[in-house]
Amino acid sequence: MKILTRAELEQIVKLDTDALSVIREGFVALSAGHVSMPPVLSMAIAEYNGEVDVKTAYIKGVSKFAIKVSPGFFDNPKLGLPSLNGLMILFSSQTGLIEALLLDKGYLTEIRTALAGALAAENLANPEIKTVGIIGAGAQARLQAQALKLVRKFESLQVWSPVPEETEKYRNEMEVALGVPVSAQTERRTLVETSDLIVTTTPSHMPLVEVDWVRPGTHITAMGSDQAEKNELAPELLQKADCFVCDSVSQSESLGELHHAKVAGMAPETVAELGSVISGNIKGRQDENDITICDLTGTGVQDTAIAVYAFEKAVGLGLGNNIE
Amino acid sequence: MKILTRAELEQIVKLDTDALSVIREGFVALSAGHVSMPPVLSMAIAEYNGEVDVKTAYIKGVSKFAIKVSPGFFDNPKLGLPSLNGLMILFSSQTGLIEALLLDKGYLTEIRTALAGALAAENLANPEIKTVGIIGAGAQARLQAQALKLVRKFESLQVWSPVPEETEKYRNEMEVALGVPVSAQTERRTLVETSDLIVTTTPSHMPLVEVDWVRPGTHITAMGSDQAEKNELAPELLQKADCFVCDSVSQSESLGELHHAKVAGMAPETVAELGSVISGNIKGRQDENDITICDLTGTGVQDTAIAVYAFEKAVGLGLGNNIE
Repeated sequence: MKILTRAELEQIVKLDTDALSVIREGFVALSAGHVSMPPVLSMAIAEYNGEVDVKTAYIKGVSKFAIKVSPGFFDNPKLGLPSLNGLMILFSSQTGLIEALLLDKGYLTEIRTALAGALAAENLANPEIKTVGIIGAGAQARLQAQALKLVRKFESLQVWSPVPEETEKYRNEMEVALGVPVSAQTERRTLVETSDLIVTTTPSHMPLVEVDWVRPGTHITAMGSDQAEKNELAPELLQKADCFVCDSVSQSESLGELHHAKVAGMAPETVAELGSVISGNIKGRQDENDITICDLTGTGVQDTAIAVYAFEKAVGLGLGNNIE
Repeated sequence: MKILTRAELEQIVKLDTDALSVIREGFVALSAGHVSMPPVLSMAIAEYNGEVDVKTAYIKGVSKFAIKVSPGFFDNPKLGLPSLNGLMILFSSQTGLIEALLLDKGYLTEIRTALAGALAAENLANPEIKTVGIIGAGAQARLQAQALKLVRKFESLQVWSPVPEETEKYRNEMEVALGVPVSAQTERRTLVETSDLIVTTTPSHMPLVEVDWVRPGTHITAMGSDQAEKNELAPELLQKADCFVCDSVSQSESLGELHHAKVAGMAPETVAELGSVISGNIKGRQDENDITICDLTGTGVQDTAIAVYAFEKAVGLGLGNNIE
């Protein structure tokens, strides 16, 4: 059994086109019906503002599968600790023996989540975009913008978050990281109205994007909601969109934007999975004026895909310690 | 973060009254409503005759909780490998940080499962029993008999399994281990008719104990079923029993004997949880001629209880390696 630390995993797994391919293949396998993926196990520890999720998936024919355990304890920053933690466990698909413990403290989740956003943009956004709008100013607000550069060029980025100091910190940091002008927007409406591609990256329980703010041609990726009570997009927007796509229909229905649209009686007429759009089995954007939406809840197949990739790279490089 | 190996865990956790108390308290907390315990996550890998279950529970006020990942790959013996494997991960209830990895390869599950059987017998069987009947001849068939000695004296034991060589191996081994005569029974019916306390320990998909075989006064613990398709007791037997108890009502309804009795329209009139019987909130056996049944599906609260106990003993003894 091999143990890999976060530092080792940060060395070998990056936001690059190799890792993007791995996640792309995972989504294609999922939507082609080649993946077993049980519902997410979720437990709240309300007294400490904590939750823990367990995700897994078996990709048929792949010799290993991962189980990911991710605790999120949202009062941790007050204690000087990160909110997100956890690990991935990699098993042999044939024997169930543990092949590796990936002690990534959430790093691989951050990467595979950002790469899903890039795949949504690659397959749904107009080829030419000028301005990117990011809602939220946390870790994913940063990584989504960086992953986007793998698939689209853009001239400027604007950001909104509820905490002005966080927004400003993001602006300063990301202008350097992205090499394009980054501006802070005080009004969400203005941000939405003036962006070609929008990524929402918050744990909001109330919609942050209203239906009449969105211009024709816009693509929106909503990656924040991964629990039934979280919600970033107005339900009406899902019905208005020309194309609504999600990572997993069953998860979006129970944990994502589709959940709220259904409750409100505003579910879109057709719902496609990202993997089907990637493989070309279902058409995504059909016109430059289409409004396209992709809802990402985060799937076990991404976890298995990134964990297998990380393990194989580690073996190739001779990284990691072996234990009994 | 501390890492404990199976060898270390075998040293510190045993089938004894200390460990029994820990599991007893876990069941009492569960039935008193002091435990968050989400449904089991379960994934089958049919092409390799494998499955993986994830269980967890948070006991309110307890500073740590465990998540257990247990793969069962039932063709492994053909490869010279054990069927059961896995690990427990122990987290801080306050921060979600990993406190320990218990690389027990299923050992702690074996122990906590056997102890649940002992608690069922302690709280439901007649105080005086002479003959114990064990159905199955695997690991739990051994451990259930050994755990029983913590709570009941018995004069003899009889065993039935579908494989005569396994039965004979069990007989030879357990006569030494238990210090009482152990006989092999070729007929299940005879075993049931002549035992005061019966434990079923199989992965059977068809009932192994029929309703008219069971004498008044008998106690039966059915610990084999932990998946919807598994079934050890005839549904009619649940309705006939004077007292039907299970470890967790929601799990027995979906994964255990209660599931099959409900489907057959034979659900018992009242269903109690073992923790409520232990705490005295619900009466178990009320007469020496009562037939009592306890269905065990295996609960996350047992996993958290045994993992916290193992960790605290390890810390006290200075065992385990620390890693980053």
